[in-house]
Amino acid sequence: MQYHLNGFRSGDPSIAEALVASEQTPGVVDVLIVGCGPAGLTLAAQLSAFPEITTRITERKSGPLEVGQADGIACRSIEMFEAFGFAEKVMKESYWVNEVSFWRPGLDGAGLTRADRIQDVEDDLSEMPHVILNQARVHDFYLEIMRNSPHRLQPDYNRELVSLTKTDDPDHPVTAVFKCLDAKGQTETIRARYVVGCDGARSTVRKSMGHALKGEAARQLWGVMDVLAVTDFPDIRLKAAIQSADHGSILIIPREGGYMVRMYIELDELHGDERAADRDVTSEMLIDNARAILDPYSLDVKDVAWWSAYEIGQRVCDAFDDVPEAERADRTPHIFIAGDACHTHSPKAGQGMNVSMADTYNLGWKLAAVLRGQALPALLNTYSDERRAKAKELIDFDRDMARLFSAKPRNAAEAEQFQRYFKKHGRYTAGVETRYESSLIVGPNDHQHLAKGLKLGMRFHSAAVTRLGDARVMQLGHTVKADGRWRLVAFAGKNDNGQTGGGIDKLCSFLQDSPDSPVIRYTPKGADIDSVIDVRAVFQSHHRDLALEEMPKLLLPAKGKLGLTDYEKIFCPASKHGPEIFDLRGIDRRLGALVIVRPDQYVGHVLPLDATEELATFFDGFMSAT
Amino acid sequence: MQYHLNGFRSGDPSIAEALVASEQTPGVVDVLIVGCGPAGLTLAAQLSAFPEITTRITERKSGPLEVGQADGIACRSIEMFEAFGFAEKVMKESYWVNEVSFWRPGLDGAGLTRADRIQDVEDDLSEMPHVILNQARVHDFYLEIMRNSPHRLQPDYNRELVSLTKTDDPDHPVTAVFKCLDAKGQTETIRARYVVGCDGARSTVRKSMGHALKGEAARQLWGVMDVLAVTDFPDIRLKAAIQSADHGSILIIPREGGYMVRMYIELDELHGDERAADRDVTSEMLIDNARAILDPYSLDVKDVAWWSAYEIGQRVCDAFDDVPEAERADRTPHIFIAGDACHTHSPKAGQGMNVSMADTYNLGWKLAAVLRGQALPALLNTYSDERRAKAKELIDFDRDMARLFSAKPRNAAEAEQFQRYFKKHGRYTAGVETRYESSLIVGPNDHQHLAKGLKLGMRFHSAAVTRLGDARVMQLGHTVKADGRWRLVAFAGKNDNGQTGGGIDKLCSFLQDSPDSPVIRYTPKGADIDSVIDVRAVFQSHHRDLALEEMPKLLLPAKGKLGLTDYEKIFCPASKHGPEIFDLRGIDRRLGALVIVRPDQYVGHVLPLDATEELATFFDGFMSAT
Repeated sequence: MQYHLNGFRSGDPSIAEALVASEQTPGVVDVLIVGCGPAGLTLAAQLSAFPEITTRITERKSGPLEVGQADGIACRSIEMFEAFGFAEKVMKESYWVNEVSFWRPGLDGAGLTRADRIQDVEDDLSEMPHVILNQARVHDFYLEIMRNSPHRLQPDYNRELVSLTKTDDPDHPVTAVFKCLDAKGQTETIRARYVVGCDGARSTVRKSMGHALKGEAARQLWGVMDVLAVTDFPDIRLKAAIQSADHGSILIIPREGGYMVRMYIELDELHGDERAADRDVTSEMLIDNARAILDPYSLDVKDVAWWSAYEIGQRVCDAFDDVPEAERADRTPHIFIAGDACHTHSPKAGQGMNVSMADTYNLGWKLAAVLRGQALPALLNTYSDERRAKAKELIDFDRDMARLFSAKPRNAAEAEQFQRYFKKHGRYTAGVETRYESSLIVGPNDHQHLAKGLKLGMRFHSAAVTRLGDARVMQLGHTVKADGRWRLVAFAGKNDNGQTGGGIDKLCSFLQDSPDSPVIRYTPKGADIDSVIDVRAVFQSHHRDLALEEMPKLLLPAKGKLGLTDYEKIFCPASKHGPEIFDLRGIDRRLGALVIVRPDQYVGHVLPLDATEELATFFDGFMSAT
Repeated sequence: MQYHLNGFRSGDPSIAEALVASEQTPGVVDVLIVGCGPAGLTLAAQLSAFPEITTRITERKSGPLEVGQADGIACRSIEMFEAFGFAEKVMKESYWVNEVSFWRPGLDGAGLTRADRIQDVEDDLSEMPHVILNQARVHDFYLEIMRNSPHRLQPDYNRELVSLTKTDDPDHPVTAVFKCLDAKGQTETIRARYVVGCDGARSTVRKSMGHALKGEAARQLWGVMDVLAVTDFPDIRLKAAIQSADHGSILIIPREGGYMVRMYIELDELHGDERAADRDVTSEMLIDNARAILDPYSLDVKDVAWWSAYEIGQRVCDAFDDVPEAERADRTPHIFIAGDACHTHSPKAGQGMNVSMADTYNLGWKLAAVLRGQALPALLNTYSDERRAKAKELIDFDRDMARLFSAKPRNAAEAEQFQRYFKKHGRYTAGVETRYESSLIVGPNDHQHLAKGLKLGMRFHSAAVTRLGDARVMQLGHTVKADGRWRLVAFAGKNDNGQTGGGIDKLCSFLQDSPDSPVIRYTPKGADIDSVIDVRAVFQSHHRDLALEEMPKLLLPAKGKLGLTDYEKIFCPASKHGPEIFDLRGIDRRLGALVIVRPDQYVGHVLPLDATEELATFFDGFMSAT
């Protein structure tokens, strides 16, 4: 954490200085977010970091969520929480998924036997764990980030969106009218530059654009319950997939706190027009089914904290914004949807909350960049492109997964097929397989060989490094915060210790002095040199073999009102702590590499250290000179 | 973290359910703590965990500390913070001391040259780092623990202690009278069973007992300042000890936040009756001296966040409670002092705050055990014995350190002597060398060979293990929370996988069934089986080779209102993560070992697994049957 840059200030450094006008709830805003779910809160937390952007977030309910349905938090989401600054809180309270066990009928077809047991998150998939935590707690952490922001942003509860219309107002072209549920007959109108609908599967924002979720509901009924129970099933504190001979399947997900367990329980197939609600499912039915599947193990449920019955459906919306494909060249979007408003799927793969948060983490920095005048509005088109592709892929994955899960394994071979599929998709469910296609903000695949393990369009995969200034071993990826900045991570080539004329020095000279440099071109006058594009370097030498005083000035920039030196830009391998980052991420040790990291932690480009022209061209494609 | 034991409850699990009477500030209490420094707050946080104990804590100042003088937090203190549940907050905000560099004049006697650079915390000294953080933030974290406790305990500010007297009241024999600084002429009287003076070097509580600090002030004047500065000295973000040729010494301690630096600067010797205040030291003088010492490096101070001048003194109080040695057999103490009230020393070794917190961490569980009827009042005698010995040792250490620091190195050999001393005492300053003598609560040295690395009377040195129930890799030491419980950590011998008749099983049978078992004898009827003595086992087998269902029932106890199973008692080595705990801590692999861990994380005893009689005898020495 860096603070005290502009002078010493006592108190909690995660609480920003409040803006004077932060108490207001303006009727005219830059961004209006409809819905306080994971998608809405991720966006609100992201936007609240920027003093110059006014945001409001509304919610139909009367207060914060207390018990949520979602609970699985993928490694990738924790990486994102780290960028927001609350990963450690989630890791402290949550259950960590370390292993998955698979159970099926014994060889004689009776009873249950443990068929396999696998590591849940493969080695070096992420520096973060896969955890389980009540969605409501994730909301709490976002709300805290918002409350601590310069805006002291808080949701407006009891606001039901009744209409959303476009007007001719060039600045604030969207008008939203809300019914105030806490004041009879009263309405509130908010005019916004951008509106983002994070208002769930029945999204009013989506309907206002005339879009619909498309797809089909599977006819399989499932039950889910969070219970406090006593059992002699030995794997009750492991994630366990159990396929019984005659009573269907159950998925056990241990919950946070050491005692609670979530069970996904297979119920019957639905017929004709039947809906989940028609079956009059009760928690007793779920418990009875769970007992039958777990037999011969006992299950004595002491308390049902929450339960529900649902049918699996995979549906996705064709468009994630208000611009038809044919008109994309002419205008840019002002209304977006995210999360369940544009894709719904089954909960068992634990993707719902994670993909929803990833939607708005993708959108947030883009909206901020356009609103702050840093980027061209065309950047906003990439949201729909990137996230719609992801949603479609997710729907396909979920359909396969759900089918396999419900398929009764007629023999060991079929049961093993399920296990294989489950294993294979560990990377996918961890959220680290998302790959954005080449676009304005993902460069062409010309130099990937210089950093084979930092794939274009995929998240910047962290690894341990040693910070030169204070010899601290840390994760390089954790230098990327949710602050809207781009990062240039320059990996030094052979024999480059930062000396004058070396690859890193030449790159720094270009970035610092050339009129073509994106740092020079896009950093506002008077702002810190790293406020738009943050340059960091990783050397191959041991940290005690490098001389801080010989490093290029750009890597030790003077910042803030007092012109203090930032000592946190230069890194070396952490050789004592396993393989070095150069080997882990396949960096060309001879030539080095320049990796451009987007504000949402995705790799925007991989270039040779001396490809200054391509570097400039990349940024010129979407940035806006101030 | 374990929660939801008695049913699901939404919200922050670190906030306990409030007691009904928690709003009151009673005039009659179990414990009255005078002073809101690190010692007082550690004690208040510890006691606030127990619903049945009423505590008040008073402070002369009008509110919480905003800027503190102390900043160094030893590894051992972070281990303790982990037990309180806020280690991760400290680690997030703080500067981590990773290396120490030593500078001295160049070979020609001019300039400065880096003579050495060493790792600050040696490998496997602690699982926790050595960090630097403003004392005020540590206070904040304690205050939060208190606020979240069942008592919702808050300090009473503006209370100046004016008198402390003993009365004949058998229940509440100490009467304290306070001047209310926020209400002119008003006083408040509090009657207490126990009073703990954490009221600093000028302690009124100490004076009320007629005790005094003894020792001598050295005549060396030092200055200290926290600055935001620009410099070309390359090790400004490392802890650096600099001895100049002609201008004395400086110790640089980088501070949290990435920019601020603390400097301890040698000034002149004091003469005759001269005091630090007589010298009219100014911050400009400190800056000038620092510049002279750092020459030829530049130092441009932009902001002085805090500064002070002091003379080094080592003083200690002969007695830490109100019972003269001659009367110890007849009565037990009711008044205690802790922290600066009983020992003062120089700040440079970073021991002040750490030793003060350790004082009351030692006292807190003892007071709680006696007040809850779990232990005999004689237990309270061990506080003075254990902590006075520690204070004396600290004073000696500090005197040596201060002398060496001020000594002008006349040649390279002398400079090297300083470095050697500094290195050698890294373990000491980390706080992990504290060793309590054999006593009521530290057993005799008969079986230490069974666990060579878990020394009697020293803190239980943690190591990584895998928890059997959920396959989570974690620190074994982190199972010891600041909850007043004793722990029995049973390390299994060869071929013991928990099977019936094995060493662990036999121990568990004794503990669960024998009338001589301390678990049976000292656990109140109706309370959870682990509420007084918490039994855990560590096996040698890989976790996938153990069967949970074959473990002794005591290791899978039914707990709480619902009789839920606690799955967090059984551990295995974490072989993937370095050397195994059995090797790291020198556990006898053939015989195993039983390690008794005190509520303050110190090793109370090491015994053979089958030494049930010695086990019973140990607890019978100080526990009280209910």
